[in-house]
Amino acid sequence: MLRVLGIDAGLQRTGWGVIDSSGPRLTAVAFGVVRTDADRPIEQRLLTIHDGLSAVIDEHHPDACAIEDIFMAKHARSALVLGEARGAALLAVARSRLPTFAYPPALVKRSIAGRGAAPKEQVQNVIRAVLGLREVPPHDAADALAVAICHANASRVHIAWDRARART
Amino acid sequence: MLRVLGIDAGLQRTGWGVIDSSGPRLTAVAFGVVRTDADRPIEQRLLTIHDGLSAVIDEHHPDACAIEDIFMAKHARSALVLGEARGAALLAVARSRLPTFAYPPALVKRSIAGRGAAPKEQVQNVIRAVLGLREVPPHDAADALAVAICHANASRVHIAWDRARART
Repeated sequence: MLRVLGIDAGLQRTGWGVIDSSGPRLTAVAFGVVRTDADRPIEQRLLTIHDGLSAVIDEHHPDACAIEDIFMAKHARSALVLGEARGAALLAVARSRLPTFAYPPALVKRSIAGRGAAPKEQVQNVIRAVLGLREVPPHDAADALAVAICHANASRVHIAWDRARART
Repeated sequence: MLRVLGIDAGLQRTGWGVIDSSGPRLTAVAFGVVRTDADRPIEQRLLTIHDGLSAVIDEHHPDACAIEDIFMAKHARSALVLGEARGAALLAVARSRLPTFAYPPALVKRSIAGRGAAPKEQVQNVIRAVLGLREVPPHDAADALAVAICHANASRVHIAWDRARART
């Protein structure tokens, strides 16, 4: 069994989702959103992201972390802010010595919705169906669960590949 | 007396400098550069930046931190990476509960070199002269010392202003 923490970092809202992957079966363990107060100084908001994710890691003990890779921000300013949030998230992961895997956003969306540019609602509905959730998760949490699923799928392929090679 | 930590964050090299400001007198306490290994995963590099600055804070006990504000990166990708490094630096500062002040890069350069677009060598030489250093500091450390000086100057103006108001 592989337990994966997916993270969708952002300064205002950082989505997270923990899933268990066992053979073909995927189960949601927990998911949520770390929110920060726009009225607080940037460094305090980064601390909120960092400490929120650290608490998630301490509670759920994932084996690995998955995060989206390069973000195509239109403006350098928004990329800088996103980078700050992402840095805070990655620090929480590094502190816990979790191996981290980054996936391009298009691959993440394709792995769960079949094509590269899925609208937010589609991602949320597919995540709900794939994990058998009662409710549609908030979209930041859905994005985090999507990257966790992407990693679980990638790991399964690797494991199957290794086994096939071992047999030959 | 005010002890200021200036930070010039970057993924490869994060410059830092600690100065004491006492009336019109500025003294360099220590400065240096936290370097990260390009062959290591991003999250480990962010941890190096964070832990390096935490060690500086623990050793020199600054009263405040100064950092450059908005960076005009040409590419969103470089802004994202810079943001990650900046996030790691700000987390170290937030963790130590240091008040943080951000200054626009042009103001920082103007406060030490007299005009907005000073070349790197000029900044290094001015920093050396202002602080009476024996050697020219590495340019990342010089940039960090420059933002620390910018904050010290700004604080002096505020203090003088507050005193003048108190007198009236």
